Amino acid sequence: MPIDPRALAASLQELWSPRVVGELDDSYIKIAKIHGELVWHSHDAQDELFFVLQGRLRLRLPDRDVELGPGELFVVPKGVQHLPIAEQECLVLLIENKATAHTGDTPTAQTRSLADQLRRIG
Amino acid sequence: MPIDPRALAASLQELWSPRVVGELDDSYIKIAKIHGELVWHSHDAQDELFFVLQGRLRLRLPDRDVELGPGELFVVPKGVQHLPIAEQECLVLLIENKATAHTGDTPTAQTRSLADQLRRIG
Repeated sequence: MPIDPRALAASLQELWSPRVVGELDDSYIKIAKIHGELVWHSHDAQDELFFVLQGRLRLRLPDRDVELGPGELFVVPKGVQHLPIAEQECLVLLIENKATAHTGDTPTAQTRSLADQLRRIG
Repeated sequence: MPIDPRALAASLQELWSPRVVGELDDSYIKIAKIHGELVWHSHDAQDELFFVLQGRLRLRLPDRDVELGPGELFVVPKGVQHLPIAEQECLVLLIENKATAHTGDTPTAQTRSLADQLRRIG
């Protein structure tokens, strides 16, 4: 069956709580509904792909902001600190290695475990 | 800078000629404009992600067809024979390991080398 991220997102209630919707070799494909900001963090060993499905995403990097609209993507290179911000509700597709921790080197109350992310949507 | 696959695709002339637009760890992010059909093939060691940006894609598999519309994706598992078909012109985003050969185990006149795929768009 095809994976339809926007349809799946209809049953995503919780903000900043990525859910796994597929696998690609040693990576997970995830969707997340976000609004507000997460926390500055980095992933020492893994790149992280952000693809905006709906809304707008600002990726604050140490030296600049990257602004993404629908259909645009950006890969945060491994080791680079970043702060995801969505001024309005935004739906993103994430692709990242299975070993990637949600908020990387910076666990907070917002941090979701892999078990959380593997819960079925709906 | 963000990557805008649809904007980049405006300068893609050749059909079935994927171009690398980014990297994600040991994978390439590619775009391809397709119309008609490619060739049955498989990639023994790598999964392959197809994400439809515009148009419709039929992935013919040994036991069924998977039909993808805009915003839908599918991962062809490693080792599974597949035949991509687009009855109308279609724009796809592909994510696959850097070692993935274009038409896998079945080189044809349509097969593009990695050097071809790494040519700058525009």
